Amino acid sequence: MTGVEEKKSTNIILFSGDYDKAMAAYIIANGAAAYDHEVTIFHTFWGLNALRKDENIPVKKGALEKMFAKMMPRGSESMGLSKMHFAGMGPKLIKKVMKKHNALSLNELVDMAKEQDINLVACTMTMDLLGLQKEELLDDVQYAGVAAYLADAEDGNVNLFI
Amino acid sequence: MTGVEEKKSTNIILFSGDYDKAMAAYIIANGAAAYDHEVTIFHTFWGLNALRKDENIPVKKGALEKMFAKMMPRGSESMGLSKMHFAGMGPKLIKKVMKKHNALSLNELVDMAKEQDINLVACTMTMDLLGLQKEELLDDVQYAGVAAYLADAEDGNVNLFI
Amino acid sequence: MTGVEEKKSTNIILFSGDYDKAMAAYIIANGAAAYDHEVTIFHTFWGLNALRKDENIPVKKGALEKMFAKMMPRGSESMGLSKMHFAGMGPKLIKKVMKKHNALSLNELVDMAKEQDINLVACTMTMDLLGLQKEELLDDVQYAGVAAYLADAEDGNVNLFI
Repeated sequence: MTGVEEKKSTNIILFSGDYDKAMAAYIIANGAAAYDHEVTIFHTFWGLNALRKDENIPVKKGALEKMFAKMMPRGSESMGLSKMHFAGMGPKLIKKVMKKHNALSLNELVDMAKEQDINLVACTMTMDLLGLQKEELLDDVQYAGVAAYLADAEDGNVNLFI
Repeated sequence: MTGVEEKKSTNIILFSGDYDKAMAAYIIANGAAAYDHEVTIFHTFWGLNALRKDENIPVKKGALEKMFAKMMPRGSESMGLSKMHFAGMGPKLIKKVMKKHNALSLNELVDMAKEQDINLVACTMTMDLLGLQKEELLDDVQYAGVAAYLADAEDGNVNLFI
Repeated sequence: MTGVEEKKSTNIILFSGDYDKAMAAYIIANGAAAYDHEVTIFHTFWGLNALRKDENIPVKKGALEKMFAKMMPRGSESMGLSKMHFAGMGPKLIKKVMKKHNALSLNELVDMAKEQDINLVACTMTMDLLGLQKEELLDDVQYAGVAAYLADAEDGNVNLFI
Protein backbone atom coordinates (compact mmCIF):
# COMPACT_ATOMS: atom_id res chain seq x y z
CA MET A 1 0.00 0.00 0.00
CA THR A 2 2.71 2.48 -0.97
CA GLY A 3 1.38 4.23 -4.06
CA VAL A 4 -1.09 7.11 -4.21
CA GLU A 5 -3.66 4.87 -5.81
CA GLU A 6 -4.70 1.98 -3.62
CA LYS A 7 -3.63 -1.49 -4.68
CA LYS A 8 -6.30 -4.02 -5.69
CA SER A 9 -6.55 -6.97 -3.36
CA THR A 10 -7.22 -10.71 -3.56
CA ASN A 11 -8.16 -12.62 -0.41
CA ILE A 12 -8.50 -16.37 -0.55
CA ILE A 13 -9.75 -18.56 2.27
CA LEU A 14 -8.18 -21.99 1.76
CA PHE A 15 -10.42 -24.33 3.76
CA SER A 16 -9.85 -27.46 1.69
CA GLY A 17 -7.10 -29.97 2.27
CA ASP A 18 -7.24 -31.30 -1.30
CA TYR A 19 -4.11 -31.06 -3.43
CA ASP A 20 -5.97 -29.90 -6.53
CA LYS A 21 -7.97 -27.23 -4.71
CA ALA A 22 -4.84 -25.93 -2.97
CA MET A 23 -3.15 -25.81 -6.39
CA ALA A 24 -6.04 -23.73 -7.75
CA ALA A 25 -5.80 -21.38 -4.77
CA TYR A 26 -2.06 -20.88 -5.20
CA ILE A 27 -2.28 -20.46 -9.00
CA ILE A 28 -4.90 -17.72 -8.62
CA ALA A 29 -2.92 -16.11 -5.78
CA ASN A 30 0.35 -16.11 -7.72
CA GLY A 31 -1.45 -14.75 -10.78
CA ALA A 32 -3.01 -11.93 -8.74
CA ALA A 33 0.38 -11.06 -7.20
CA ALA A 34 1.88 -10.89 -10.69
CA TYR A 35 -0.91 -8.39 -11.51
CA ASP A 36 0.24 -6.35 -8.55
CA HIS A 37 -2.62 -7.24 -6.21
CA GLU A 38 -2.05 -7.32 -2.47
CA VAL A 39 -2.69 -11.04 -1.91
CA THR A 40 -3.55 -13.01 1.21
CA ILE A 41 -4.24 -16.72 1.59
CA PHE A 42 -6.00 -17.40 4.88
CA HIS A 43 -5.49 -21.11 5.68
CA THR A 44 -8.18 -22.59 7.88
CA PHE A 45 -9.32 -26.12 8.82
CA TRP A 46 -7.79 -28.71 6.43
CA GLY A 47 -6.16 -25.96 4.36
CA LEU A 48 -3.62 -25.63 7.18
CA ASN A 49 -2.08 -28.90 5.97
CA ALA A 50 -0.60 -27.01 3.01
CA LEU A 51 1.53 -25.09 5.51
CA ARG A 52 2.76 -28.10 7.52
CA LYS A 53 6.43 -28.99 7.41
CA ASP A 54 6.95 -32.42 5.86
CA GLU A 55 9.11 -33.76 8.68
CA ASN A 56 7.71 -34.92 12.02
CA ILE A 57 8.14 -32.12 14.59
CA PRO A 58 8.08 -33.40 18.18
CA VAL A 59 5.70 -31.18 20.16
CA LYS A 60 3.63 -31.84 23.27
CA LYS A 61 0.00 -32.61 22.48
CA GLY A 62 -3.04 -34.07 24.14
CA ALA A 63 -4.24 -37.50 22.97
CA LEU A 64 -7.05 -36.10 20.78
CA GLU A 65 -4.76 -33.56 19.12
CA LYS A 66 -2.20 -36.29 18.49
CA MET A 67 -4.83 -38.31 16.67
CA PHE A 68 -5.77 -35.41 14.42
CA ALA A 69 -2.12 -34.61 13.72
CA LYS A 70 -1.51 -38.23 12.72
CA MET A 71 -4.53 -38.45 10.46
CA MET A 72 -3.75 -35.23 8.60
CA PRO A 73 -1.19 -35.04 5.78
CA ARG A 74 2.15 -33.44 6.60
CA GLY A 75 2.78 -30.79 3.97
CA SER A 76 1.43 -30.00 0.56
CA GLU A 77 2.92 -32.96 -1.28
CA SER A 78 1.10 -35.48 0.94
CA MET A 79 -2.39 -34.09 0.26
CA GLY A 80 -4.98 -36.09 -1.69
CA LEU A 81 -7.19 -35.16 -4.62
CA SER A 82 -10.79 -33.91 -4.33
CA LYS A 83 -11.76 -36.21 -7.23
CA MET A 84 -10.40 -39.52 -8.47
CA HIS A 85 -8.26 -40.15 -5.45
CA PHE A 86 -8.29 -43.89 -6.20
CA ALA A 87 -6.47 -44.92 -3.04
CA GLY A 88 -3.54 -42.66 -3.79
CA MET A 89 -3.18 -43.43 -7.49
CA GLY A 90 -4.90 -40.18 -8.51
CA PRO A 91 -2.40 -37.87 -6.77
CA LYS A 92 0.55 -39.80 -8.21
CA LEU A 93 -0.98 -39.69 -11.68
CA ILE A 94 -1.63 -35.96 -11.58
CA LYS A 95 1.88 -35.23 -10.35
CA LYS A 96 3.29 -37.32 -13.20
CA VAL A 97 1.16 -35.46 -15.71
CA MET A 98 2.16 -32.12 -14.14
CA LYS A 99 5.84 -32.96 -14.40
CA LYS A 100 5.41 -33.99 -18.03
CA HIS A 101 3.76 -30.64 -18.82
CA ASN A 102 6.29 -28.68 -16.75
CA ALA A 103 3.55 -27.46 -14.41
CA LEU A 104 4.69 -26.29 -10.98
CA SER A 105 4.04 -28.61 -8.04
CA LEU A 106 2.16 -27.28 -5.03
CA ASN A 107 5.46 -27.06 -3.14
CA GLU A 108 6.90 -24.86 -5.86
CA LEU A 109 3.72 -22.73 -5.97
CA VAL A 110 4.03 -22.12 -2.22
CA ASP A 111 7.68 -21.07 -2.68
CA MET A 112 6.68 -18.73 -5.50
CA ALA A 113 3.98 -17.24 -3.27
CA LYS A 114 6.61 -16.48 -0.62
CA GLU A 115 8.88 -14.86 -3.19
CA GLN A 116 6.00 -12.68 -4.36
CA ASP A 117 5.29 -11.56 -0.78
CA ILE A 118 1.87 -13.16 -0.67
CA ASN A 119 0.62 -13.16 2.92
CA LEU A 120 0.35 -16.78 4.06
CA VAL A 121 -1.87 -16.68 7.12
CA ALA A 122 -2.69 -19.57 9.45
CA CYS A 123 -6.02 -19.40 11.27
CA THR A 124 -5.18 -19.50 14.96
CA MET A 125 -8.62 -20.73 15.97
CA THR A 126 -8.41 -23.93 13.91
CA MET A 127 -4.74 -24.41 14.84
CA ASP A 128 -5.90 -24.52 18.43
CA LEU A 129 -8.78 -26.84 17.55
CA LEU A 130 -6.68 -29.30 15.57
CA GLY A 131 -3.77 -29.04 18.00
CA LEU A 132 -1.33 -27.66 15.41
CA GLN A 133 1.58 -25.66 16.79
CA LYS A 134 3.71 -22.95 15.18
CA GLU A 135 6.78 -25.21 15.19
CA GLU A 136 4.93 -27.59 12.85
CA LEU A 137 4.21 -24.96 10.21
CA LEU A 138 6.49 -23.38 7.60
CA ASP A 139 8.51 -20.30 8.51
CA ASP A 140 7.28 -16.92 7.24
CA VAL A 141 3.70 -17.84 8.10
CA GLN A 142 1.56 -15.17 9.76
CA TYR A 143 -0.95 -15.95 12.51
CA ALA A 144 -4.38 -14.34 12.68
CA GLY A 145 -8.09 -14.92 13.17
CA VAL A 146 -11.33 -14.23 11.32
CA ALA A 147 -11.27 -10.53 12.31
CA ALA A 148 -8.03 -9.96 10.38
CA TYR A 149 -9.47 -11.81 7.39
CA LEU A 150 -12.60 -9.63 7.38
CA ALA A 151 -10.57 -6.43 7.68
CA ASP A 152 -8.74 -7.39 4.47
CA ALA A 153 -11.67 -8.89 2.59
CA GLU A 154 -14.21 -6.14 3.18
CA ASP A 155 -12.21 -3.88 0.85
CA GLY A 156 -11.06 -6.73 -1.39
CA ASN A 157 -11.63 -7.11 -5.11
CA VAL A 158 -11.43 -10.88 -5.51
CA ASN A 159 -12.62 -12.79 -2.43
CA LEU A 160 -12.83 -16.56 -2.76
CA PHE A 161 -13.56 -19.51 -0.46
CA ILE A 162 -11.78 -22.61 -1.72
CA MET B 1 -29.32 0.15 6.49
CA THR B 2 -30.15 2.96 8.94
CA GLY B 3 -27.01 5.15 8.98
CA VAL B 4 -26.07 7.88 6.51
CA GLU B 5 -23.14 5.81 5.39
CA GLU B 6 -24.13 2.51 3.89
CA LYS B 7 -23.32 -0.62 5.88
CA LYS B 8 -20.81 -3.09 4.46
CA SER B 9 -22.33 -6.42 3.59
CA THR B 10 -21.36 -10.10 3.70
CA ASN B 11 -23.36 -12.64 1.67
CA ILE B 12 -22.62 -16.31 2.03
CA ILE B 13 -24.14 -19.06 -0.07
CA LEU B 14 -24.06 -22.21 2.07
CA PHE B 15 -24.36 -25.04 -0.45
CA SER B 16 -22.47 -27.67 1.53
CA GLY B 17 -24.05 -30.05 4.01
CA ASP B 18 -20.75 -30.69 5.82
CA TYR B 19 -20.50 -29.84 9.51
CA ASP B 20 -17.07 -28.27 9.21
CA LYS B 21 -17.96 -26.15 6.19
CA ALA B 22 -21.17 -24.96 7.85
CA MET B 23 -19.08 -24.07 10.93
CA ALA B 24 -16.73 -22.01 8.77
CA ALA B 25 -19.72 -20.23 7.17
CA TYR B 26 -21.28 -19.38 10.53
CA ILE B 27 -17.96 -18.29 12.10
CA ILE B 28 -17.31 -15.86 9.22
CA ALA B 29 -20.94 -14.68 9.33
CA ASN B 30 -20.89 -14.08 13.08
CA GLY B 31 -17.55 -12.29 12.77
CA ALA B 32 -18.87 -10.04 10.02
CA ALA B 33 -21.98 -9.23 12.05
CA ALA B 34 -19.75 -8.29 14.99
CA TYR B 35 -17.98 -5.89 12.59
CA ASP B 36 -21.35 -4.35 11.83
CA HIS B 37 -21.82 -5.86 8.40
CA GLU B 38 -25.29 -6.60 7.10
CA VAL B 39 -25.00 -10.40 6.86
CA THR B 40 -27.01 -12.97 4.93
CA ILE B 41 -26.53 -16.73 4.74
CA PHE B 42 -28.38 -18.12 1.75
CA HIS B 43 -28.87 -21.87 2.38
CA THR B 44 -29.23 -23.93 -0.78
CA PHE B 45 -29.03 -27.64 -1.66
CA TRP B 46 -27.42 -29.63 1.20
CA GLY B 47 -26.80 -26.42 3.19
CA LEU B 48 -30.52 -26.45 3.97
CA ASN B 49 -29.84 -29.31 6.40
CA ALA B 50 -28.27 -26.80 8.81
CA LEU B 51 -31.74 -25.23 9.15
CA ARG B 52 -33.67 -28.44 9.71
CA LYS B 53 -35.30 -29.03 13.08
CA ASP B 54 -33.81 -32.06 14.79
CA GLU B 55 -37.13 -33.73 15.52
CA ASN B 56 -39.15 -35.60 12.89
CA ILE B 57 -41.91 -33.30 11.60
CA PRO B 58 -44.80 -35.22 10.03
CA VAL B 59 -45.60 -33.58 6.67
CA LYS B 60 -47.14 -34.97 3.51
CA LYS B 61 -44.56 -35.82 0.86
CA GLY B 62 -44.27 -37.79 -2.34
CA ALA B 63 -42.23 -41.01 -2.27
CA LEU B 64 -39.15 -39.46 -3.87
CA GLU B 65 -39.16 -36.49 -1.51
CA LYS B 66 -39.58 -38.86 1.45
CA MET B 67 -36.45 -40.72 0.38
CA PHE B 68 -34.42 -37.51 0.19
CA ALA B 69 -35.74 -36.34 3.54
CA LYS B 70 -34.75 -39.64 5.13
CA MET B 71 -31.28 -39.68 3.63
CA MET B 72 -30.48 -36.12 4.68
CA PRO B 73 -29.35 -35.21 8.21
CA ARG B 74 -31.91 -33.55 10.46
CA GLY B 75 -30.31 -30.42 11.84
CA SER B 76 -26.80 -29.12 12.20
CA GLU B 77 -25.62 -31.58 14.83
CA SER B 78 -26.31 -34.60 12.59
CA MET B 79 -24.16 -33.37 9.70
CA GLY B 80 -20.95 -35.17 8.71
CA LEU B 81 -17.45 -33.85 8.02
CA SER B 82 -16.04 -32.96 4.59
CA LYS B 83 -12.79 -34.74 5.52
CA MET B 84 -11.99 -37.65 7.82
CA HIS B 85 -15.57 -38.66 8.31
CA PHE B 86 -14.44 -42.20 9.26
CA ALA B 87 -17.94 -43.65 9.51
CA GLY B 88 -19.04 -41.07 12.03
CA MET B 89 -15.93 -41.12 14.21
CA GLY B 90 -14.61 -37.88 12.69
CA PRO B 91 -17.64 -35.74 13.64
CA LYS B 92 -17.64 -37.15 17.18
CA LEU B 93 -13.92 -36.52 17.53
CA ILE B 94 -14.15 -32.94 16.32
CA LYS B 95 -17.04 -32.21 18.65
CA LYS B 96 -15.05 -33.61 21.56
CA VAL B 97 -12.07 -31.49 20.65
CA MET B 98 -14.32 -28.44 20.22
CA LYS B 99 -15.82 -28.93 23.65
CA LYS B 100 -12.37 -29.30 25.19
CA HIS B 101 -11.28 -26.01 23.60
CA ASN B 102 -14.54 -24.28 24.49
CA ALA B 103 -15.35 -23.73 20.82
CA LEU B 104 -18.99 -23.13 19.96
CA SER B 105 -20.91 -25.99 18.36
CA LEU B 106 -22.73 -25.38 15.08
CA ASN B 107 -26.01 -25.28 16.99
CA GLU B 108 -24.68 -22.51 19.19
CA LEU B 109 -23.26 -20.64 16.19
CA VAL B 110 -26.72 -20.72 14.56
CA ASP B 111 -28.26 -19.34 17.75
CA MET B 112 -25.66 -16.57 17.89
CA ALA B 113 -26.39 -15.74 14.26
CA LYS B 114 -30.06 -15.29 15.11
CA GLU B 115 -29.19 -13.04 18.06
CA GLN B 116 -27.01 -10.91 15.81
CA ASP B 117 -29.89 -10.54 13.30
CA ILE B 118 -28.08 -12.37 10.54
CA ASN B 119 -30.53 -13.14 7.73
CA LEU B 120 -30.93 -16.89 7.52
CA VAL B 121 -32.47 -17.53 4.12
CA ALA B 122 -33.70 -20.86 2.76
CA CYS B 123 -33.61 -21.26 -1.03
CA THR B 124 -37.18 -21.99 -2.06
CA MET B 125 -36.18 -23.63 -5.33
CA THR B 126 -34.11 -26.37 -3.66
CA MET B 127 -36.69 -26.75 -0.87
CA ASP B 128 -39.16 -27.60 -3.58
CA LEU B 129 -36.69 -29.94 -5.28
CA LEU B 130 -35.73 -31.82 -2.12
CA GLY B 131 -39.30 -31.80 -0.81
CA LEU B 132 -38.48 -29.79 2.33
CA GLN B 133 -41.36 -27.87 3.87
CA LYS B 134 -41.38 -24.76 6.04
CA GLU B 135 -42.61 -26.75 9.05
CA GLU B 136 -39.40 -28.79 8.97
CA LEU B 137 -37.11 -25.75 9.18
CA LEU B 138 -36.21 -23.55 12.14
CA ASP B 139 -38.37 -20.57 12.98
CA ASP B 140 -37.08 -17.10 12.00
CA VAL B 141 -35.92 -18.43 8.63
CA GLN B 142 -36.62 -16.27 5.58
CA TYR B 143 -37.62 -17.73 2.22
CA ALA B 144 -36.26 -16.44 -1.07
CA GLY B 145 -34.75 -17.38 -4.43
CA VAL B 146 -31.65 -16.61 -6.44
CA ALA B 147 -32.97 -13.16 -7.44
CA ALA B 148 -32.99 -12.01 -3.81
CA TYR B 149 -29.49 -13.38 -3.33
CA LEU B 150 -28.19 -11.48 -6.36
CA ALA B 151 -29.85 -8.23 -5.26
CA ASP B 152 -27.89 -8.44 -1.98
CA ALA B 153 -24.63 -9.79 -3.38
CA GLU B 154 -24.20 -7.39 -6.30
CA ASP B 155 -23.49 -4.60 -3.80
CA GLY B 156 -21.80 -6.90 -1.27
CA ASN B 157 -18.27 -6.63 0.07
CA VAL B 158 -17.57 -10.23 1.03
CA ASN B 159 -19.38 -12.76 -1.19
CA LEU B 160 -18.52 -16.40 -0.61
CA PHE B 161 -19.76 -19.77 -1.89
CA ILE B 162 -19.20 -22.44 0.73
CA MET C 1 -20.30 -2.95 -21.95
CA THR C 2 -22.28 -0.69 -24.30
CA GLY C 3 -24.13 1.69 -21.98
CA VAL C 4 -22.85 4.86 -20.36
CA GLU C 5 -23.10 3.26 -16.96
CA GLU C 6 -20.92 0.20 -16.60
CA LYS C 7 -22.64 -3.16 -16.34
CA LYS C 8 -22.40 -5.12 -13.09
CA SER C 9 -20.48 -8.35 -13.45
CA THR C 10 -20.60 -11.90 -12.09
CA ASN C 11 -17.55 -14.15 -12.45
CA ILE C 12 -17.79 -17.77 -11.41
CA ILE C 13 -14.88 -20.20 -11.28
CA LEU C 14 -16.36 -23.67 -11.74
CA PHE C 15 -13.69 -26.01 -10.34
CA SER C 16 -16.00 -28.81 -9.26
CA GLY C 17 -17.05 -31.71 -11.44
CA ASP C 18 -20.16 -32.44 -9.36
CA TYR C 19 -23.55 -32.25 -11.06
CA ASP C 20 -25.21 -30.40 -8.18
CA LYS C 21 -22.43 -27.82 -7.84
CA ALA C 22 -22.41 -27.21 -11.59
CA MET C 23 -26.20 -26.76 -11.41
CA ALA C 24 -25.78 -24.15 -8.67
CA ALA C 25 -23.14 -22.35 -10.75
CA TYR C 26 -25.35 -22.26 -13.84
CA ILE C 27 -28.48 -21.24 -11.90
CA ILE C 28 -26.64 -18.27 -10.35
CA ALA C 29 -25.06 -17.38 -13.70
CA ASN C 30 -28.38 -17.49 -15.57
CA GLY C 31 -30.00 -15.44 -12.81
CA ALA C 32 -27.26 -12.82 -12.99
CA ALA C 33 -27.55 -12.63 -16.78
CA ALA C 34 -31.30 -12.09 -16.42
CA TYR C 35 -30.43 -9.17 -14.10
CA ASP C 36 -28.29 -7.78 -16.90
CA HIS C 37 -24.91 -8.65 -15.42
CA GLU C 38 -21.98 -9.40 -17.67
CA VAL C 39 -21.47 -13.06 -16.70
CA THR C 40 -18.48 -15.36 -17.11
CA ILE C 41 -18.09 -18.98 -16.01
CA PHE C 42 -14.43 -19.92 -15.96
CA HIS C 43 -14.25 -23.75 -16.09
CA THR C 44 -11.11 -25.20 -14.58
CA PHE C 45 -10.00 -28.67 -13.40
CA TRP C 46 -13.02 -31.01 -13.07
CA GLY C 47 -15.42 -28.20 -13.99
CA LEU C 48 -14.23 -28.64 -17.57
CA ASN C 49 -16.27 -31.84 -17.71
CA ALA C 50 -19.44 -29.72 -17.90
CA LEU C 51 -18.20 -28.50 -21.31
CA ARG C 52 -17.30 -31.92 -22.75
CA LYS C 53 -19.31 -33.21 -25.69
CA ASP C 54 -21.13 -36.39 -24.77
CA GLU C 55 -19.90 -38.41 -27.72
CA ASN C 56 -16.41 -39.90 -27.92
CA ILE C 57 -14.20 -37.60 -30.03
CA PRO C 58 -11.18 -39.40 -31.46
CA VAL C 59 -8.10 -37.25 -30.79
CA LYS C 60 -4.44 -38.12 -30.39
CA LYS C 61 -3.35 -38.29 -26.75
CA GLY C 62 -0.51 -39.60 -24.67
CA ALA C 63 -1.17 -42.63 -22.44
CA LEU C 64 -1.56 -40.58 -19.23
CA GLU C 65 -3.95 -38.11 -20.87
CA LYS C 66 -5.98 -41.03 -22.27
CA MET C 67 -6.38 -42.41 -18.75
CA PHE C 68 -7.64 -39.09 -17.40
CA ALA C 69 -9.99 -38.65 -20.34
CA LYS C 70 -11.45 -42.12 -19.74
CA MET C 71 -11.90 -41.61 -16.01
CA MET C 72 -13.65 -38.26 -16.36
CA PRO C 73 -17.35 -37.95 -17.25
CA ARG C 74 -18.19 -36.92 -20.80
CA GLY C 75 -20.56 -33.98 -20.57
CA SER C 76 -22.78 -32.51 -17.92
CA GLU C 77 -25.33 -35.32 -17.78
CA SER C 78 -22.70 -37.91 -16.81
CA MET C 79 -21.45 -36.01 -13.76
CA GLY C 80 -21.97 -37.35 -10.22
CA LEU C 81 -23.32 -35.70 -7.09
CA SER C 82 -21.19 -34.08 -4.36
CA LYS C 83 -23.37 -35.76 -1.71
CA MET C 84 -25.35 -38.99 -1.66
CA HIS C 85 -23.87 -40.32 -4.85
CA PHE C 86 -24.80 -43.88 -3.77
CA ALA C 87 -23.05 -45.60 -6.67
CA GLY C 88 -24.98 -43.63 -9.25
CA MET C 89 -28.42 -43.86 -7.61
CA GLY C 90 -28.21 -40.30 -6.27
CA PRO C 91 -27.77 -38.60 -9.65
CA LYS C 92 -30.64 -40.65 -11.12
CA LEU C 93 -32.86 -39.82 -8.18
CA ILE C 94 -32.18 -36.10 -8.36
CA LYS C 95 -32.81 -36.02 -12.10
CA LYS C 96 -36.12 -37.80 -11.55
CA VAL C 97 -37.10 -35.31 -8.86
CA MET C 98 -35.99 -32.41 -11.08
CA LYS C 99 -38.11 -33.66 -13.95
CA LYS C 100 -41.10 -34.04 -11.66
CA HIS C 101 -40.72 -30.44 -10.48
CA ASN C 102 -40.04 -29.15 -14.00
CA ALA C 103 -36.57 -27.99 -13.00
CA LEU C 104 -34.11 -27.51 -15.84
CA SER C 105 -31.42 -30.15 -16.27
CA LEU C 106 -27.78 -29.07 -16.35
CA ASN C 107 -27.78 -29.58 -20.12
CA GLU C 108 -30.67 -27.18 -20.45
CA LEU C 109 -29.04 -24.68 -18.07
CA VAL C 110 -25.90 -24.70 -20.26
CA ASP C 111 -28.04 -24.06 -23.35
CA MET C 112 -29.80 -21.18 -21.59
CA ALA C 113 -26.42 -19.74 -20.62
CA LYS C 114 -25.39 -19.73 -24.28
CA GLU C 115 -28.63 -18.04 -25.30
CA GLN C 116 -28.04 -15.36 -22.67
CA ASP C 117 -24.50 -14.73 -24.00
CA ILE C 118 -22.82 -15.89 -20.83
CA ASN C 119 -19.10 -16.29 -21.46
CA LEU C 120 -18.25 -19.97 -21.11
CA VAL C 121 -14.49 -20.08 -20.71
CA ALA C 122 -12.29 -23.18 -20.60
CA CYS C 123 -9.05 -22.87 -18.64
CA THR C 124 -6.28 -23.65 -21.13
CA MET C 125 -3.77 -24.58 -18.43
CA THR C 126 -5.90 -27.42 -17.04
CA MET C 127 -6.96 -28.50 -20.54
CA ASP C 128 -3.28 -29.01 -21.24
CA LEU C 129 -2.77 -30.79 -17.92
CA LEU C 130 -5.72 -33.17 -18.33
CA GLY C 131 -5.06 -33.64 -22.03
CA LEU C 132 -8.42 -32.19 -23.13
CA GLN C 133 -8.54 -30.81 -26.66
CA LYS C 134 -10.78 -28.17 -28.22
CA GLU C 135 -12.48 -30.78 -30.43
CA GLU C 136 -13.76 -32.51 -27.28
CA LEU C 137 -15.47 -29.42 -25.88
CA LEU C 138 -18.73 -27.76 -26.86
CA ASP C 139 -18.75 -25.14 -29.62
CA ASP C 140 -18.97 -21.46 -28.56
CA VAL C 141 -16.52 -22.06 -25.74
CA GLN C 142 -13.81 -19.43 -25.20
CA TYR C 143 -10.25 -20.31 -24.22
CA ALA C 144 -8.27 -18.34 -21.66
CA GLY C 145 -6.04 -18.52 -18.60
CA VAL C 146 -5.96 -17.16 -15.08
CA ALA C 147 -4.86 -13.70 -16.27
CA ALA C 148 -8.09 -13.24 -18.22
CA TYR C 149 -10.10 -14.42 -15.21
CA LEU C 150 -8.39 -11.90 -12.93
CA ALA C 151 -8.90 -9.05 -15.40
CA ASP C 152 -12.66 -9.72 -15.25
CA ALA C 153 -12.93 -10.53 -11.56
CA GLU C 154 -10.94 -7.61 -10.17
CA ASP C 155 -13.78 -5.29 -11.18
CA GLY C 156 -16.51 -7.87 -10.58
CA ASN C 157 -19.46 -7.60 -8.24
CA VAL C 158 -20.19 -11.25 -7.52
CA ASN C 159 -17.08 -13.45 -7.62
CA LEU C 160 -17.55 -17.08 -6.59
CA PHE C 161 -15.41 -20.22 -6.52
CA ILE C 162 -17.60 -23.31 -6.88
